[in-house]
Amino acid sequence: MKTQIGAKDILFPVPPALIVTGLEDNRNIITIAWIGIVGSKPPAIGISLHKSRYSLSLLRQTGEFTVNIPSKSDYIKVDYCGITSGKKRNKFKDTGFTKIDGTKVKVPIIKECPLNIECKIIKELDMSDWILIIGEILEINIDSDKINPDGKVSVEKVNPLIYVPTIREYWSIGQKLGNSFDVGRNYNQTSQSTNK
Amino acid sequence: MKTQIGAKDILFPVPPALIVTGLEDNRNIITIAWIGIVGSKPPAIGISLHKSRYSLSLLRQTGEFTVNIPSKSDYIKVDYCGITSGKKRNKFKDTGFTKIDGTKVKVPIIKECPLNIECKIIKELDMSDWILIIGEILEINIDSDKINPDGKVSVEKVNPLIYVPTIREYWSIGQKLGNSFDVGRNYNQTSQSTNK
Repeated sequence: MKTQIGAKDILFPVPPALIVTGLEDNRNIITIAWIGIVGSKPPAIGISLHKSRYSLSLLRQTGEFTVNIPSKSDYIKVDYCGITSGKKRNKFKDTGFTKIDGTKVKVPIIKECPLNIECKIIKELDMSDWILIIGEILEINIDSDKINPDGKVSVEKVNPLIYVPTIREYWSIGQKLGNSFDVGRNYNQTSQSTNK
Repeated sequence: MKTQIGAKDILFPVPPALIVTGLEDNRNIITIAWIGIVGSKPPAIGISLHKSRYSLSLLRQTGEFTVNIPSKSDYIKVDYCGITSGKKRNKFKDTGFTKIDGTKVKVPIIKECPLNIECKIIKELDMSDWILIIGEILEINIDSDKINPDGKVSVEKVNPLIYVPTIREYWSIGQKLGNSFDVGRNYNQTSQSTNK
């Protein structure tokens, strides 16, 4: 049986991404759960912010941002960045997160986040009180020690933080279940024929 | 130290959502990892599909779709839906997933998925070979037995499947770490003052 709970902004699991905007003394970190890949050629990410957010002006000034996927161990700092305003606090100083240079954009990446995505803004879409900012992905940075000898990124070593928005919970990852484009291949032996 | 791995479509963790499109004998299920909330008033979800996808015409015919968040136990069926074309196979028949009515849209929801989101299309955004379809969320359905006595959705009982795109792995959730808008509150005792 199903229960209807209304028209709510619930979708999970998502990454609570630390978005860095701005340059020099005006750098800010915000925590964004309204995030997703929106295309693959070129690869692009969408982030949605309320129009009142301080970071929106910083985004438009620089035309660039970085998406930093936090590890599970930083969930308290991630929450702090989400509830504290960059108008009042320098969140890099407060959290001790380390700014390091990206290779394709001027906005820094966060050293302590194992996965860092460098983006330049290519589109905006008005979503009423929210604005969807779309960034073309220019470079992906991974902690070198989180790449396996075969060159594959180790999800276990990245150990990304999970967020459940609106229900408002942080979770860790559990166990690997299998590989995609793989485990489903033998599911239906007759799938070469048609049953339409 | 960081390693650069190029401009790739990597962002995780994400939900490998089962998107149902179409009506009558033309219903289809596709697995979409390019998904995210794009606004909160009204609540809205974006899904991005390659323009060659069979489901795109079904989406435009009906103007509606449902987003069904699978439980961890269905990862093999989820993979099957992602790699099998709806032009050739009736994936509801192949997987045994059960169609049940939503309350706000005509497109069905999947009974075995604990979280079902009913959407009507409000915008489209061209992303080169991909198209970003934005749906206003009209209703959220949850399995009744996955809501705690206090009315809160139980993430543990929903036990959602996690996907890591491009690296191509399915994972389960692990442990709850804490509540957001909460654990970060006492992080910085001086956060009522400014250090800008």
